[in-house]
Amino acid sequence: MSFAALKERVLAANLELPRLGLVAFTWGNVSARDAASGAVVIKPSGLPYEAMGRDDMVVVAPDGRVLEGRRKPSSDLATHLALYRAFPAIGGIVHTHSTWATAWAQACRDIPALGTTHADYFHGPVPCTDALSEAQTRGAYEHETGVAIVECLRARGIDPLAMPAALVAHHGPFSWGADAEAAVHNAAVLELVAQMALASLQLQPALPAMPRHLLDRHFLRKHGPGAYYGQG
Amino acid sequence: MSFAALKERVLAANLELPRLGLVAFTWGNVSARDAASGAVVIKPSGLPYEAMGRDDMVVVAPDGRVLEGRRKPSSDLATHLALYRAFPAIGGIVHTHSTWATAWAQACRDIPALGTTHADYFHGPVPCTDALSEAQTRGAYEHETGVAIVECLRARGIDPLAMPAALVAHHGPFSWGADAEAAVHNAAVLELVAQMALASLQLQPALPAMPRHLLDRHFLRKHGPGAYYGQG
Amino acid sequence: MSFAALKERVLAANLELPRLGLVAFTWGNVSARDAASGAVVIKPSGLPYEAMGRDDMVVVAPDGRVLEGRRKPSSDLATHLALYRAFPAIGGIVHTHSTWATAWAQACRDIPALGTTHADYFHGPVPCTDALSEAQTRGAYEHETGVAIVECLRARGIDPLAMPAALVAHHGPFSWGADAEAAVHNAAVLELVAQMALASLQLQPALPAMPRHLLDRHFLRKHGPGAYYGQG
Amino acid sequence: MSFAALKERVLAANLELPRLGLVAFTWGNVSARDAASGAVVIKPSGLPYEAMGRDDMVVVAPDGRVLEGRRKPSSDLATHLALYRAFPAIGGIVHTHSTWATAWAQACRDIPALGTTHADYFHGPVPCTDALSEAQTRGAYEHETGVAIVECLRARGIDPLAMPAALVAHHGPFSWGADAEAAVHNAAVLELVAQMALASLQLQPALPAMPRHLLDRHFLRKHGPGAYYGQG
Repeated sequence: MSFAALKERVLAANLELPRLGLVAFTWGNVSARDAASGAVVIKPSGLPYEAMGRDDMVVVAPDGRVLEGRRKPSSDLATHLALYRAFPAIGGIVHTHSTWATAWAQACRDIPALGTTHADYFHGPVPCTDALSEAQTRGAYEHETGVAIVECLRARGIDPLAMPAALVAHHGPFSWGADAEAAVHNAAVLELVAQMALASLQLQPALPAMPRHLLDRHFLRKHGPGAYYGQG
Repeated sequence: MSFAALKERVLAANLELPRLGLVAFTWGNVSARDAASGAVVIKPSGLPYEAMGRDDMVVVAPDGRVLEGRRKPSSDLATHLALYRAFPAIGGIVHTHSTWATAWAQACRDIPALGTTHADYFHGPVPCTDALSEAQTRGAYEHETGVAIVECLRARGIDPLAMPAALVAHHGPFSWGADAEAAVHNAAVLELVAQMALASLQLQPALPAMPRHLLDRHFLRKHGPGAYYGQG
Repeated sequence: MSFAALKERVLAANLELPRLGLVAFTWGNVSARDAASGAVVIKPSGLPYEAMGRDDMVVVAPDGRVLEGRRKPSSDLATHLALYRAFPAIGGIVHTHSTWATAWAQACRDIPALGTTHADYFHGPVPCTDALSEAQTRGAYEHETGVAIVECLRARGIDPLAMPAALVAHHGPFSWGADAEAAVHNAAVLELVAQMALASLQLQPALPAMPRHLLDRHFLRKHGPGAYYGQG
Repeated sequence: MSFAALKERVLAANLELPRLGLVAFTWGNVSARDAASGAVVIKPSGLPYEAMGRDDMVVVAPDGRVLEGRRKPSSDLATHLALYRAFPAIGGIVHTHSTWATAWAQACRDIPALGTTHADYFHGPVPCTDALSEAQTRGAYEHETGVAIVECLRARGIDPLAMPAALVAHHGPFSWGADAEAAVHNAAVLELVAQMALASLQLQPALPAMPRHLLDRHFLRKHGPGAYYGQG
């Protein structure tokens, strides 16, 4: 079995991160899941973006065993795998330390839904996880990070396709989607939404969330069964 | 009748939006009105900017019927048409989710006139509409958005040529002008003015508006009958 | 008499403004004074930067009469002339609406001296003028703007070479220097200093000015008689 | 003895500063120490970056005597030498006036450790020195600046390799590392961390530092004896 095409896409998706201003240096990683086999293709750890080629991508089984590739996978692999396991509908995951989304994560605050830019992509506030306990941090830390995201969505009854991103407390954003390209797009939108939400709160610190009916209207005009945005 | 020249201009005006940093992805749209026929040329919905050509532009009648073009028009078409109907003097309209103007819209605040940069283009505070009701949001939403802008200007007695922009509450900015190029220019100025006004308020939260005589002097030196700015 | 060389320099200095991110569109203007004749070369009014050539520069006498050039001079000419008249030691002037400096001007606040970046160029707080009165605004407005800057420095006993910039209340920054190039450099530094000062005040709203001895040390190591910075 | 290779690296490291957006004009300087001889290679004073060549780099002995080069060394040389003397393990030093780190220095505040981006590089809050006294400022100012940094770390019991940066009060950041390249990298990370920390505090002014166990986990996964990040 060959994953050449998916490696090509994962490479391209990783290279998109610095182009969109979402990562500096080697911070950030994109993975994608092969729908047929369940294998995951992910960026190698700590290689500079400008030096990465298709065959530096690492292919791993759902349990993390390396199937193909001579590089060590991203140190955040276990977080990705925990998300794939819990969210069967997703096919791509992105992690960045993008400036504004990370600022919210560091403040341990959800990003409230304040306008239609947010509502076009995120069907409610973007949730921030609880902080990991000392035991979780000292243990299988990257795995526990994924579990914290999964638990955060589960506890709030959130569908991961209606909320394709979360903030990890004291850390930064993860986003996902049907494939790697959608996950990257959601990472970029999240960053813009995070910047605008901070600015809006500076103008109006006690600003309430946008009305529910407007949130629904915008999310559903792009994502609901009656979606009417785009040429589709 | 052919709209080739106006399509060319509307395409160029749309492409100007990402170049000016006013839109990411496909967010934002420009239209222009043909003075002779009243037909409106508008961007297609959801196409990437880099893929758009002249013949992807859509020509519609004032009532929204498609006259020319194989694409679906922008999902915001009904907002544009409501503005053209109410403001006979305008010939171009722009909608963006530009960062700073959107931050004000999300905060549901007018942008106060704080300096001459503002006064050179906007003859008073840039108004923010009331939020749409649940009925308006669930109904002909894009049309109601246009109506909210029109009502906002009408209720305050504002001439749309002296105030070529408004913010839609919880949403973002619309701007307009004599033609598509002027509307794009006003969108770019609005974004700068929005950024500077936020910064000024951070320095002085209780800052009053600029004096009326200075607002008049600047607006009228560029736009009044005795204008003396530029080579004209 | 020919001003070809000075026109070339004034053109280049004007083109530097958008390159440094200090002006958008046609906002901003640079002039220089010919030391021998006292004539002033200034940007034409409202021409796009990309279309300007050397011979669009306008040469005027100290009283404002056009000596050379087929264009209308910048509408801010009278402000420049008032500064040249009052400050014999300066040879270049810049006006911009650069974002952060304008934010301070709109807030009608001096930029306090908070660090050595500031002290390397500005020997104390960058002063903000009083607001112009209604009579001044309705009268010879651009001339009165220059007078307000001159009066502001005079009232505070400031040497224009030790403080090569001022903010005009509700308007924006002017800067100057020995020649047009120095004035442009000071405009760029002012913008950085304005941005950093706002950020520092956000971190510490009651922040006092830097110690006087440090202000002196830095200003004088670059500008005093015993200057030891650079290769000179 | 020839320092050609090290001069080449120091030149390249200096040129990296404007490319990373860390310095404007000639602000900022990088030096490196030759491990064998203890000689230090540093940028010349006040030369524009675009004009600098390898042979403009200046080689000095640990006591500051010029060993090679026809240029005056950076005016901050004495600060660099004080740091090299006190921190035997470091091989490169960078000084910038980068916007966000300088904003913190001007506010005379440590940058608290608020998230994993910070923890990946800085094992605790980035310390801000005490302000220099009037005597220190009037005396061997640049040397005293280095002493202030050394004293700040010593008083807090900080290992310079676990905290490869400090802020000088009212001034700006210095960073260091095993070599010039690492010092530049740390300068860039510091700037991002400074920007994100300011934004997080705007969202939550009373935000406490991140938990100690998380700080340790991230710093040690990249820098401890059991480091598992990257391909090494």
